[in-house]
Amino acid sequence: MQCNAYSCIGRECTAEENPVTERVVLAYSGGLDTSVAIGWIAEETGAEVIAVAVDVGQGGEDLDVIRKRALACGAVEAEVADARDEFADEYCLPAIKANALYMDRYPLVSALSRPTIVKHLVAAARKHGATTVAHGCTGKGNDQVRFEAGIAALAPGLKCIAPVRDYAMTRDRAIAFCEEKQLPIATTKKSPYSIDQNVFGRAVETGFLEDIWNAPIEDVYEYTSNPAAPREADEVIITFEQGVPVAVDGRPVTVLQAVQQLNERAGAQGIGRIDMVEDRLVGIKSREVYEAPGAIALITAHQELENVTVERELARYKRQVEQRWGELVYDGQWFSPLKRALDGFIDEANQHVNGDIRMTLHGGRAVVTGRRSESSLYDFDLATYDTGDTFDQAAAKGFIDIYSLSSKIAAKRDLT
Amino acid sequence: MQCNAYSCIGRECTAEENPVTERVVLAYSGGLDTSVAIGWIAEETGAEVIAVAVDVGQGGEDLDVIRKRALACGAVEAEVADARDEFADEYCLPAIKANALYMDRYPLVSALSRPTIVKHLVAAARKHGATTVAHGCTGKGNDQVRFEAGIAALAPGLKCIAPVRDYAMTRDRAIAFCEEKQLPIATTKKSPYSIDQNVFGRAVETGFLEDIWNAPIEDVYEYTSNPAAPREADEVIITFEQGVPVAVDGRPVTVLQAVQQLNERAGAQGIGRIDMVEDRLVGIKSREVYEAPGAIALITAHQELENVTVERELARYKRQVEQRWGELVYDGQWFSPLKRALDGFIDEANQHVNGDIRMTLHGGRAVVTGRRSESSLYDFDLATYDTGDTFDQAAAKGFIDIYSLSSKIAAKRDLT
Amino acid sequence: MQCNAYSCIGRECTAEENPVTERVVLAYSGGLDTSVAIGWIAEETGAEVIAVAVDVGQGGEDLDVIRKRALACGAVEAEVADARDEFADEYCLPAIKANALYMDRYPLVSALSRPTIVKHLVAAARKHGATTVAHGCTGKGNDQVRFEAGIAALAPGLKCIAPVRDYAMTRDRAIAFCEEKQLPIATTKKSPYSIDQNVFGRAVETGFLEDIWNAPIEDVYEYTSNPAAPREADEVIITFEQGVPVAVDGRPVTVLQAVQQLNERAGAQGIGRIDMVEDRLVGIKSREVYEAPGAIALITAHQELENVTVERELARYKRQVEQRWGELVYDGQWFSPLKRALDGFIDEANQHVNGDIRMTLHGGRAVVTGRRSESSLYDFDLATYDTGDTFDQAAAKGFIDIYSLSSKIAAKRDLT
Amino acid sequence: MQCNAYSCIGRECTAEENPVTERVVLAYSGGLDTSVAIGWIAEETGAEVIAVAVDVGQGGEDLDVIRKRALACGAVEAEVADARDEFADEYCLPAIKANALYMDRYPLVSALSRPTIVKHLVAAARKHGATTVAHGCTGKGNDQVRFEAGIAALAPGLKCIAPVRDYAMTRDRAIAFCEEKQLPIATTKKSPYSIDQNVFGRAVETGFLEDIWNAPIEDVYEYTSNPAAPREADEVIITFEQGVPVAVDGRPVTVLQAVQQLNERAGAQGIGRIDMVEDRLVGIKSREVYEAPGAIALITAHQELENVTVERELARYKRQVEQRWGELVYDGQWFSPLKRALDGFIDEANQHVNGDIRMTLHGGRAVVTGRRSESSLYDFDLATYDTGDTFDQAAAKGFIDIYSLSSKIAAKRDLT
Repeated sequence: MQCNAYSCIGRECTAEENPVTERVVLAYSGGLDTSVAIGWIAEETGAEVIAVAVDVGQGGEDLDVIRKRALACGAVEAEVADARDEFADEYCLPAIKANALYMDRYPLVSALSRPTIVKHLVAAARKHGATTVAHGCTGKGNDQVRFEAGIAALAPGLKCIAPVRDYAMTRDRAIAFCEEKQLPIATTKKSPYSIDQNVFGRAVETGFLEDIWNAPIEDVYEYTSNPAAPREADEVIITFEQGVPVAVDGRPVTVLQAVQQLNERAGAQGIGRIDMVEDRLVGIKSREVYEAPGAIALITAHQELENVTVERELARYKRQVEQRWGELVYDGQWFSPLKRALDGFIDEANQHVNGDIRMTLHGGRAVVTGRRSESSLYDFDLATYDTGDTFDQAAAKGFIDIYSLSSKIAAKRDLT
Repeated sequence: MQCNAYSCIGRECTAEENPVTERVVLAYSGGLDTSVAIGWIAEETGAEVIAVAVDVGQGGEDLDVIRKRALACGAVEAEVADARDEFADEYCLPAIKANALYMDRYPLVSALSRPTIVKHLVAAARKHGATTVAHGCTGKGNDQVRFEAGIAALAPGLKCIAPVRDYAMTRDRAIAFCEEKQLPIATTKKSPYSIDQNVFGRAVETGFLEDIWNAPIEDVYEYTSNPAAPREADEVIITFEQGVPVAVDGRPVTVLQAVQQLNERAGAQGIGRIDMVEDRLVGIKSREVYEAPGAIALITAHQELENVTVERELARYKRQVEQRWGELVYDGQWFSPLKRALDGFIDEANQHVNGDIRMTLHGGRAVVTGRRSESSLYDFDLATYDTGDTFDQAAAKGFIDIYSLSSKIAAKRDLT
Repeated sequence: MQCNAYSCIGRECTAEENPVTERVVLAYSGGLDTSVAIGWIAEETGAEVIAVAVDVGQGGEDLDVIRKRALACGAVEAEVADARDEFADEYCLPAIKANALYMDRYPLVSALSRPTIVKHLVAAARKHGATTVAHGCTGKGNDQVRFEAGIAALAPGLKCIAPVRDYAMTRDRAIAFCEEKQLPIATTKKSPYSIDQNVFGRAVETGFLEDIWNAPIEDVYEYTSNPAAPREADEVIITFEQGVPVAVDGRPVTVLQAVQQLNERAGAQGIGRIDMVEDRLVGIKSREVYEAPGAIALITAHQELENVTVERELARYKRQVEQRWGELVYDGQWFSPLKRALDGFIDEANQHVNGDIRMTLHGGRAVVTGRRSESSLYDFDLATYDTGDTFDQAAAKGFIDIYSLSSKIAAKRDLT
Repeated sequence: MQCNAYSCIGRECTAEENPVTERVVLAYSGGLDTSVAIGWIAEETGAEVIAVAVDVGQGGEDLDVIRKRALACGAVEAEVADARDEFADEYCLPAIKANALYMDRYPLVSALSRPTIVKHLVAAARKHGATTVAHGCTGKGNDQVRFEAGIAALAPGLKCIAPVRDYAMTRDRAIAFCEEKQLPIATTKKSPYSIDQNVFGRAVETGFLEDIWNAPIEDVYEYTSNPAAPREADEVIITFEQGVPVAVDGRPVTVLQAVQQLNERAGAQGIGRIDMVEDRLVGIKSREVYEAPGAIALITAHQELENVTVERELARYKRQVEQRWGELVYDGQWFSPLKRALDGFIDEANQHVNGDIRMTLHGGRAVVTGRRSESSLYDFDLATYDTGDTFDQAAAKGFIDIYSLSSKIAAKRDLT
């Protein structure tokens, strides 16, 4: 019998000796770190490693190439999944409906992909009888929490390990391991950039940006052109139904297509670059550079359509809900009971968010220039100062008297 | 005896007949509407009208010209006040500290000037023994509420009247009145724009924008150049102490100067244009176009400096406080007890907001490119992925276990 | 033809003269004020009046007696509806799920009945082609707003009138009218108490309580016995499913029965008396005395069952939602978009609120003494300090280190 | 030289051998666990232990007895502090002003004492040059977090250890250690109750209450009599100035005296018993029984005085602030930046909370029966339905029209 377990590479199969080997499902990217992790985990734990790669629109290599590499590096099984539509429909879309911008800026790019990946890891663990899930995160970032809190919420019985954090798998040691085991991975000098990307955006960290007085250079960006470069403006009309982007310039789109098309068009105009100091869940502040052209364009359009179609008090409360929703998701609580209940609120609030938003994409800015909606609450006859005005101005006096009464009574006391 | 009461214009003084004439203080702009209102109020009420003009940086005519016109139109007294520094220090500055953007967009331009003016109206009413305050607002906007709620909170005994709303002083009738009484005001064809402006920004309403599918045209803007016009970028460094902008490019400034200088520099780059559908306090949605280059540049810089210097939980809670603060001020509750208590929170949160923000002003965008602060909470040694990292990654595992415990326990129940 | 229009009482029918008479639907209680209002409205407006009486468990006269009195007083039609189950299921139940206590005290008794009544008024207006709805409220209370905001939200085309407020129908003038028209109503001296009651509770206002230093006397209470009177304690077990009370002491109940049974049992123990100074929507503070034995007992039980079955972060957020929900409903916004969206949140949060709560009812207090639930999140093995403890205490150290890191970093700065 | 270091007990002093011995400050209670901890820490770490006992009104032994016991158990130094007034003024009072009730029930008894003790530990560590602070908490409770987060915020350079959690100092092993070392502590069979108490209240945990279906028995209570026992009611008048209780029945009191006197009087009436399932910071639910007669009586009175003296919108917002304040303090964030900023809000809101509250204490209930205040916002003339009513009812119509306009417009859309 030929077994593919890491422990059997280069020698007689030991499957018979260890009839019940533990199994670990590893979140696999195809890169150096997680390729090495396959063997590293096997050595540390004696377990069989199952590699799972999930396509959330990060681009790059073919999934099948990645799958084969995992096996070549010692995985007993390797699964790949095209989760791009799932990611767009079930993770990016709720973020659009929530106008989710962590710290009023960041559209949660990585925070959205982690629960998507977690779902596939858990499914693979169930399918293959694994007891443990592994990921490649360090011990000081948010993603470790997003992975492990997600696992805890979907499969509370699974253990989690992280070789970088738990088994001291540093970059240098990983390269040494790779060379020693002759793994089929290039160990060329590391790029200066640490990147996480998916269809909703791209995050870049790099040494010189750790000095927060330094500005980013053009080189860090890939999804967006230089906004300062002269070019023609691009006008786009986005159509929403119940908060869902359903058409771009009149052509029906899936959510994935909406994000992709706007990535391209808004990206070409330099829209969606973000440079900020951010509060991590683990208590430190970090400097982050993102680009998310499609996400920013879609959220900008969605916000303005809400301005037109959502009643004032609902809109005001929704802003608070949006903030909490963004914090929860940033903090890795995608599968938490509170997140579910907030989703109920947000879906209800999006019930009437129907219509078209016209935007000019240009020079780094997505600017709304027009809105039309059959669900509009903007009432021309009430709003106009022209003839035809139907607003009853006589009511205002009584309104103001009673509206200001409680602080007027307080003033009588406080002014004496 | 020569009395200047409206009722005595062109005939024998009647002061002896009406020894105790009521007095009305009118918020006077120098324009047609409030110039006519002087006489209109006098005719409607028999009262003497005292005109009060307040300079909050709206530009335009000399204050003394305005004062003389008020007297020429029948005011028994006319007062003018240069309140530009007061407006900047006591009204714009708290808005900057609160990063106040109503509906995440509008920096409260008119909502900030109204309480400033109210304070001067109340002072004049006290000085001149007036029983009533008058303003030129219609019955369907926010400003009537801001005036009257402000008066109620500062001088609960004063009455409020609004000739346009309460005495049917329409535009056409005002022009007729003006011509009949030969008031020294040009009654040329009305500009298509209805404008309110001060040093913190400018609001424009006009008929064709009442169709919310129409885009604004360049003609509506005055504080800002066309962002799409090619020009050189402008780099600026803004220094804050305790949340207060105290220097621009190293040169000390007052708050007023900071706003003025950034109006000019950010305005020249087309920054600060806002086009939105907005929820008015009186229950309707309206379409508003604003430009506020200095305000947007200052708030953008202040937000990022807070990202660097304010602790996470405080920053998260402050976002909610900011939203409520903006709604309160928009809603005319500047002098309310809740506003005062929120100010206490905001001032405390700005205690350590010290340092420099470097921004690139260009193409309609104010982009932060650097931050430095002696009060920074960004800790390079904790944040870096380089050698010298002091973050204890071993703690993360325990953190995640307990951090995710409550939703893990819920998951055990909910997944069965 | 015999027409029953008010204008035809005691003389030849005039229906032929006024072929299209306007119709007004009146919220009718059967008491003096609304009986007089039938004729008063007819005289003021020339309209036909349709009386609608809704039973929300207020007790008192038979509905048929009330119906006949309305006709005798000049109503052209009179409708009565037993809405007790509807009131309990659709209005009281959401309040229980929301643990709704305005200002942490008042279970919204009247605020819940008004939207119930509004729904019946609107249905009657539709059925009878009425253009206007009338109610008996004064101009300084909350109920006028609840009626009219409810009407606006369910039938924005209907007008609203209130004879007491709009047509100066004072008590004295009502009595005079009654006597003059010989209406079949006793005009005996008015009770010193102004009462509104339904199955969820009872509100009492009276002159001597307007001095807020005065204590209520036993005489004001009707739903509750004196809590200080010695008696045996009563133990009750209430069973909830998804937040709905479904059994009392193991016997299945409707929501109405749950409220009724607990009114009786908790009322007998003096539970649910409330005496408070309250912030009215119209801007004044008023002194209110309520009794709501069933409501308080059910909410107390429901709260504790949530403590057992709702995850912490969801529970914390729900408290804020509950507060806003209570304010909205108090403020007459039952049919508002925000209320609907909050209901979505609350229903989701009640998904797992299943189980039994044992309470001791005694001496004015409803005290929870036991809870059991198959949906419990209380985990004995994690909570116990005994042998069998499964809590991993080693994780705590790492948790605390990271949990306190952001304020620790701030401390390093702030302490220097 | 005679040194008192643990390591020198019973043998030649070794101070010369270890000229720079590390020092640990231990939060010392005088009981078995922390007495053993003195030696246990010394053995585990080789450090000198300085015992610090803080009197926060927990009663029990004389401080000097406790001090001597610490020395007899091997402490090199022992400090005791009467912090009762400090605890009342600086910790209990802010909780009263915040009406702080975690989960609407628990007045934060232990959560308030921990930061008080932390302050004394830090001061002692500074004075004695200690590098570490130790406490007796387990690894699954809140108090470990409160101690360590407090230390992190006041002295970020100090380390924290907890022998029970970190050095496996179980109860049985502690008793064995005690007997082996012949420490002067009774090792009689442990009480079934685990108790934490101070002047603001008392917390009791015990095995049979870990079954949440079991009711507490009278035996668990010490601060409160049985509320069901027949006795005379007690009437009390509490006077507040700016939210501070300053007199009881007209006699001036310190905050400490106010709490003590109401502990006695409300305790005698069985007031302040709390039995709840509670969400711990460490993610589990636990069953807690508390008694806090003085705290509950004072908060009840303070709440109602706020109802009378705080303007509506401020009061509504303060409820949210109170909830967050209570959660923060429960969660051990007393010294955090957010807590400080919320205190600013709360102090401002208490500015006018002046006046008298009359309460009846009886049968387990503290019932407000009267309020009077020179800062009252209750306006009899506006509130009364009697002659003298000054409320302008005519304003109501206009108010309601505009107040309900935004949801009316939404209704027009949603109903079609």
